[in-house]
Amino acid sequence: MTETIEIIKRRRCVRKYKPDQIPDSALNEIMECALLAPNAMNQQKWHFTVIQDEEILKKITEVSRENLLKSGSERMVQRASDPDYSPFFNAPTVIIISADSQARFVQLDCALAAENILLAAESLDIASCIMTSPEMIFKSEKGRELMKELKIPEGYEHVCTITLGYRDGDRPEPKPRNKGVITYLK
Amino acid sequence: MTETIEIIKRRRCVRKYKPDQIPDSALNEIMECALLAPNAMNQQKWHFTVIQDEEILKKITEVSRENLLKSGSERMVQRASDPDYSPFFNAPTVIIISADSQARFVQLDCALAAENILLAAESLDIASCIMTSPEMIFKSEKGRELMKELKIPEGYEHVCTITLGYRDGDRPEPKPRNKGVITYLK
Repeated sequence: MTETIEIIKRRRCVRKYKPDQIPDSALNEIMECALLAPNAMNQQKWHFTVIQDEEILKKITEVSRENLLKSGSERMVQRASDPDYSPFFNAPTVIIISADSQARFVQLDCALAAENILLAAESLDIASCIMTSPEMIFKSEKGRELMKELKIPEGYEHVCTITLGYRDGDRPEPKPRNKGVITYLK
Repeated sequence: MTETIEIIKRRRCVRKYKPDQIPDSALNEIMECALLAPNAMNQQKWHFTVIQDEEILKKITEVSRENLLKSGSERMVQRASDPDYSPFFNAPTVIIISADSQARFVQLDCALAAENILLAAESLDIASCIMTSPEMIFKSEKGRELMKELKIPEGYEHVCTITLGYRDGDRPEPKPRNKGVITYLK
């Protein structure tokens, strides 16, 4: 087994982080890997917003909290009422990936780049989680304002968000996988 | 730099393959990596059709050729008129990734799995290409029939196709990347 295959197999989404920030050298390597992902016709209609500013993360958390409190879902209201609530599990680095909503195949492009981020990070012993749920944050009116503040390009939509940091606790077990989704025609 | 980062950085889409087939042991490792990709709520609404049967690959090629000849595009007609035409660059292994068209976030799920396939393959010195264009093949009436023959589950749509094999010639250079697509908020 190659190191790469080992990294792919062992990587899991982590939802509990230590407060320690990841080094810039690691972040730079990881982001270089993101940009080298294959993408349709090298269109690169993607954008990566790397947030390590605690004030900004708090602001996003508050908009998210407000949305959840208004959601009408008891489970969501309960989650948002926790004073320690964080949509990003208090990870010190958050990467919002957005894409030009008019371009084709951008969901694929962004996810290919996202997997590079997750695997490059894991190979540096940096834990990660990938989420689609933060799109909820940006769909509210305050969320739209937030996108401007975060300098997400006009006309770009949230595709997914990645958290990065050091794992606090054990690596989670993988959820069961259905092997019946592969057809071999030999 | 970790091996994984090196693999991510050096991997390119390859469009010229030797006829040699990849070993089953490699294919099995690669497909295991595909299934271990993160995916929304572990929904696994994806399907992987691994084709190594030359007759089936020829059949898909003929449907694709027919579509191109009817396309009205001079460039396409010219491409399809080449007796050696292959939408898959004559790669010995082709993986069609499809997904439940009703499920959310499946484009992301499939691309995360696709990147695992590409990187696991590269780490085993197996070259690859990822393409969205084969969706054209499956949009025609004959293409729809083909999907049934390939046992792609009902209600599933083509997301992307991956070719695997041994590179014939040099590894292509990466296309230039725009570093301005990253915003750092520290």
